Amino acid sequence: MAIISGSRRVRRTPFSDGVEAAGVKGYTVYNHMLLPTMFESIEDDYHHLKNHVQVWDVSCERQVQVKGPDARRLIQFLTPRDLSGLREDRGMYIPVTDQGGGMLNDPVMLDAGPDTYWISIADSDFLLFVLAVAGTGGFDVEVIEPDVSPLAVQGPQADELMGRVFGGAVKGLRFFGCGRFEFEGFEYLISRSGYSKQGGFEIYVEGSERGMPLWNALFKAGEDLNVRAGGPNLIERIEGGLLSYGNDMTRENSPLECGLGRYVSDNQLDTCFGGRAMREEREAGSKQMIRPIAIDGDLPPCDRLWHVCAGGARVGQVTSAARSPDFGTNVAIGMLANTHWDAGTKIEVETQDGMHAAEVQAQFWI
Amino acid sequence: MAIISGSRRVRRTPFSDGVEAAGVKGYTVYNHMLLPTMFESIEDDYHHLKNHVQVWDVSCERQVQVKGPDARRLIQFLTPRDLSGLREDRGMYIPVTDQGGGMLNDPVMLDAGPDTYWISIADSDFLLFVLAVAGTGGFDVEVIEPDVSPLAVQGPQADELMGRVFGGAVKGLRFFGCGRFEFEGFEYLISRSGYSKQGGFEIYVEGSERGMPLWNALFKAGEDLNVRAGGPNLIERIEGGLLSYGNDMTRENSPLECGLGRYVSDNQLDTCFGGRAMREEREAGSKQMIRPIAIDGDLPPCDRLWHVCAGGARVGQVTSAARSPDFGTNVAIGMLANTHWDAGTKIEVETQDGMHAAEVQAQFWI
Repeated sequence: MAIISGSRRVRRTPFSDGVEAAGVKGYTVYNHMLLPTMFESIEDDYHHLKNHVQVWDVSCERQVQVKGPDARRLIQFLTPRDLSGLREDRGMYIPVTDQGGGMLNDPVMLDAGPDTYWISIADSDFLLFVLAVAGTGGFDVEVIEPDVSPLAVQGPQADELMGRVFGGAVKGLRFFGCGRFEFEGFEYLISRSGYSKQGGFEIYVEGSERGMPLWNALFKAGEDLNVRAGGPNLIERIEGGLLSYGNDMTRENSPLECGLGRYVSDNQLDTCFGGRAMREEREAGSKQMIRPIAIDGDLPPCDRLWHVCAGGARVGQVTSAARSPDFGTNVAIGMLANTHWDAGTKIEVETQDGMHAAEVQAQFWI
Repeated sequence: MAIISGSRRVRRTPFSDGVEAAGVKGYTVYNHMLLPTMFESIEDDYHHLKNHVQVWDVSCERQVQVKGPDARRLIQFLTPRDLSGLREDRGMYIPVTDQGGGMLNDPVMLDAGPDTYWISIADSDFLLFVLAVAGTGGFDVEVIEPDVSPLAVQGPQADELMGRVFGGAVKGLRFFGCGRFEFEGFEYLISRSGYSKQGGFEIYVEGSERGMPLWNALFKAGEDLNVRAGGPNLIERIEGGLLSYGNDMTRENSPLECGLGRYVSDNQLDTCFGGRAMREEREAGSKQMIRPIAIDGDLPPCDRLWHVCAGGARVGQVTSAARSPDFGTNVAIGMLANTHWDAGTKIEVETQDGMHAAEVQAQFWI
């Protein structure tokens, strides 16, 4: 197994000193930034996440800040989701696509102040897309990546820990709800969200210098809760059906194929980027769709796309897979043709180590 | 030291099987793809590169293919370099910027056929920028990332090795010259270029399935030349003054600050993206500029920006540094204010381990 090489280009985060002190063993790179993936082992981290509380350095969820009189109009042009329901106390998931309806990113949008929005992005330089549309289309906005680094608190004890640091009111947030809560004299934007199904929060830490004091406070306050450093867990996120941009969906896929149709508003499809393609797909029906898949046998790491076959023909692909200790099977996420996407369908998955029997599931493991 | 976690999102390349068989020890991630950084050690790889020949998996130099009747006009809009000198047998370096003149990427452009151009990119999703300008500005083009993976052959024996595999005519290529040369019945676009100062070539491998046969042929043909797998070498590229996008320059920097003024054509500045800002900077003079810097003492890894100070004030930053065995000093690349950029100026560099004395150099170590 190869190490990851350090450079300024693969950016450290405001929490990297804490992550290293906690004994990080594995990293990936996400938005040109270090994302910790493993502390003890993927399995040990998984059990801990489901039973206790973890603090995750997810600084790599960078923000694209769009500010100015045309900010709202520009973002509405970029997403098929009708933004008229946007409220300052709620995040909104907004798919964004190219002209053909292919997904370019998988972000959440937040109201960050007057004429100011944060688009909290997945792993692609969506800032470049926004910059170009703004510059070419004559939108009066400023587009920057602000010094904002999300820190996630996830797990069944997340409410308890967050209440100790930010005050009990933070526990009143509803799913995707957000508000400002004080720690050491500064108000942090906090949302009830995160890339696990165990519940928890994301704290949008403004100002890198505030990173380690907050990190340390969370660990100190959570000592008796067995708080640990963690990160998005491969097994847990597949069990929960949390898709990963770049893994389970790319520019090759539309929001509809990814099961995100409820975020594609009919009333936007005449005007938004990629709207015509999405309307055509909606009217004709999608040809493939994301599905949970259980795979038999001992699997190698899913570090590449695996073809899915049935009757000798290719009918889809698996893009994330892991052994689930709690469910006693290999849990997987795949994109399957409409001929083979019904629950119970028997398929075969071709890994680098050979073929494995598999079955389409009715739902994710939650 | 932490390992790198595998996933489809951090893409393998057509040569990954060969890279692993060669015993890769370190990776970075570049354009969402694995880039090998180390095989024996950075120092050992460095000496070998300077004395023999290496084969580098630089698939991560992804191509943005722009094709269609408006392709040339679109690219000319995106870069301040006058493209009227473009020839099909030469690559052209084309800086690209945002509206404020901040660098968005650091690519080389190739003529890849009728109305078809490849923009060979550094580490940012420049495809998204091109897509957005094309879609918003009404340019009649198709923008894709084709299945093209560059393989570099670098080092003093590169000509000998390439001649054995592609025929002697390939040795006639001039610097940045390119042409098509046959191997096993297919013509590969090859240029005399690469991210080292030791000389060599880049082979644009079209079709992933052609990757390993070519890799294996190069190793077989080069056995008596002591050919090895390698990658861009940290020490050698700093000695040679090869800048790295994301390390030594970012959107915070203009092409002029990066010493790329010769690629900024006055006759394009009224019409290209960012032209006005670059004209203003050219007329007023740049406030800072890239410089070679020699640093004293034992340095930690340069995995973050280091402030440069003089007389207690901040006057710049160092963004790449390494111990040079051949030159007996720490070689570094930094951006220095015009008050402190003259050769011989004494400065101080603040690393994570403390302050180090340093001196601005007249030229890189070549």
